[in-house]
Amino acid sequence: MSRVYLDHNATTPLRLEARAAMVEAMELVGNPSSVHAEGRAAKAFLEKCRARLARALGAEGAEIVFTASATEAAALALHGRGIRGAAVEHDAVGAWVSDDLAVDGAGRVSVENPLESTLQLANSETGVIQTLPDAIAVSDMTQALGKVEVNFLSSGAMAAIFSAHKLGGPKGVGALVMARGIDLDPVLKGGGQEMGRRAGTENLIGIAGFAAAAEAAVADVAAGRWDEIAHLRDLLEKAIADAGNLTISVGKDAPRLPNTACFATPGWKGETQVMQMDLKGFAVSAGSACSSGKMRASGVLRAMGFDEATAAGAIRVSLGLETTKDEVMRFADCWRAALQKHQARAA
Amino acid sequence: MSRVYLDHNATTPLRLEARAAMVEAMELVGNPSSVHAEGRAAKAFLEKCRARLARALGAEGAEIVFTASATEAAALALHGRGIRGAAVEHDAVGAWVSDDLAVDGAGRVSVENPLESTLQLANSETGVIQTLPDAIAVSDMTQALGKVEVNFLSSGAMAAIFSAHKLGGPKGVGALVMARGIDLDPVLKGGGQEMGRRAGTENLIGIAGFAAAAEAAVADVAAGRWDEIAHLRDLLEKAIADAGNLTISVGKDAPRLPNTACFATPGWKGETQVMQMDLKGFAVSAGSACSSGKMRASGVLRAMGFDEATAAGAIRVSLGLETTKDEVMRFADCWRAALQKHQARAA
Repeated sequence: MSRVYLDHNATTPLRLEARAAMVEAMELVGNPSSVHAEGRAAKAFLEKCRARLARALGAEGAEIVFTASATEAAALALHGRGIRGAAVEHDAVGAWVSDDLAVDGAGRVSVENPLESTLQLANSETGVIQTLPDAIAVSDMTQALGKVEVNFLSSGAMAAIFSAHKLGGPKGVGALVMARGIDLDPVLKGGGQEMGRRAGTENLIGIAGFAAAAEAAVADVAAGRWDEIAHLRDLLEKAIADAGNLTISVGKDAPRLPNTACFATPGWKGETQVMQMDLKGFAVSAGSACSSGKMRASGVLRAMGFDEATAAGAIRVSLGLETTKDEVMRFADCWRAALQKHQARAA
Repeated sequence: MSRVYLDHNATTPLRLEARAAMVEAMELVGNPSSVHAEGRAAKAFLEKCRARLARALGAEGAEIVFTASATEAAALALHGRGIRGAAVEHDAVGAWVSDDLAVDGAGRVSVENPLESTLQLANSETGVIQTLPDAIAVSDMTQALGKVEVNFLSSGAMAAIFSAHKLGGPKGVGALVMARGIDLDPVLKGGGQEMGRRAGTENLIGIAGFAAAAEAAVADVAAGRWDEIAHLRDLLEKAIADAGNLTISVGKDAPRLPNTACFATPGWKGETQVMQMDLKGFAVSAGSACSSGKMRASGVLRAMGFDEATAAGAIRVSLGLETTKDEVMRFADCWRAALQKHQARAA
């Protein structure tokens, strides 16, 4: 039986639209910084991608700096600014900010001073969506874009972080979007690219994939394609709940991404669940994938007030647009059988 | 008549081997940081690319950190270390180091304390190749790899900077190679990727292209394919010299890359030459392309002792493996005609 990939929040396969755009971009000869015709053609292509992405993000008129990842965009947006954040932020954000903003049991963050704070739009582990306060300094919108409606200009954020590979673009491309007039020190220096904000020859092929993927992903959101996925997610949560155990569906009490379920089973380690499901052919995760091989209790769940045993017992199941009801139900069956074995051993 | 691209040191077209490897990598589903089968497959692919690149670089047993550019590799290698360099270094290196190491008229740099200095292996504007002192802290080998033999382990360098797109890989991928045991603070934080040295999900597709391009480029060097290009470069220099003017072939007195010619004509601005040649169908450059739209007298030539008028009159013509004798001779004819017009106007 073929594998079932239910870890789309870690990364999702390359979309056909992105693939086609990347193959097209492979034909470009010039360096966008060169002044001759080949260079100008590469530069024009780059700026066309930027404009397409701006439209997809609702960021027309804002500035877009292409980076190699959301992680790099976070560094550019946050380094040296003394910004405050909550412990539910992704490590890429957490590396540069405090983690002392209050988080309630539903995962909602309280921001006291938006101009000096960062707040993610959606959480990668629970899918919980935040209401952004007006003029929040920086928002990590990586997980939200392509799953729910995102409009930078009306979001209230002064700057926002995005990643291509979370929505069907290639790995290795991200962007920082900024309201006009914001001035940030570059992290990568030594070249005038990206208006002096980020040195280094631009990843033209990857950027082409990003723009194409974002356009397609945003169109899918507008077409309501995730509604069916949200329904599958709800079926999955019901099936897990019907297993009649202590498992909690984390984040159910807040607005959420349509594709994300987070199940916490006190006393049954998330990493064990992930490995058992993997052996049965299902790819899910325990916490964020973004820190190589790291396996520890979810800081997100701890911040929401769950105890260590519950936080350590969490797994994330994140669906994609191609996920089927059969796949989801097979996962639920398999997970329940593993739970029963776990309970029998624990008894 | 079709365009003639003679700016291969700015960037060179994607090699077929790189393209094929990238298209293959587009099929990978997982995130290399995920622990399930899809993640492990992506990780295995990444590590295979790293091993292939290590072989191509003569860096087996050394550490390779993949970055988004040589610029980022330079930042990682050099930031906060108080390293000394010469004014002939690329801006990506110059951004992090002093520029006070002595340069002679042939372009050779004198290093006093290798352990605290950086020295490029080959200059992007003149092609001049340096003899690296043993244990030089960092060497920018970006322009050398794929044009001359490069072997990291026998180079004497403790760390070396590379870029994919200078040798037929994609733009947006670079690498820092380090002797084992060197410890550097990361520039990009917030994830455990690349052994904690560089956070951010890896650009798998680009890295695949880099490894394949490096292998193919190194094989071409070993096969002597650049010998013919060096011959064409020499023909070009003779044709330019025969024009009977004050034009200097910069760097002729030192070992050089086989593909690079730098012509300095006092009083005839390099940027003017580039634009005139561009209109005639030839892509060449004045100085490094890497600083967006920047047009000023070459700091490299100034460091070699040329006066401002000469340094401002420099152009770089950099050949590729597909460059033909006909293309080179057509360029020389066209350039001579433009020179005559310039002289007529100046007279």
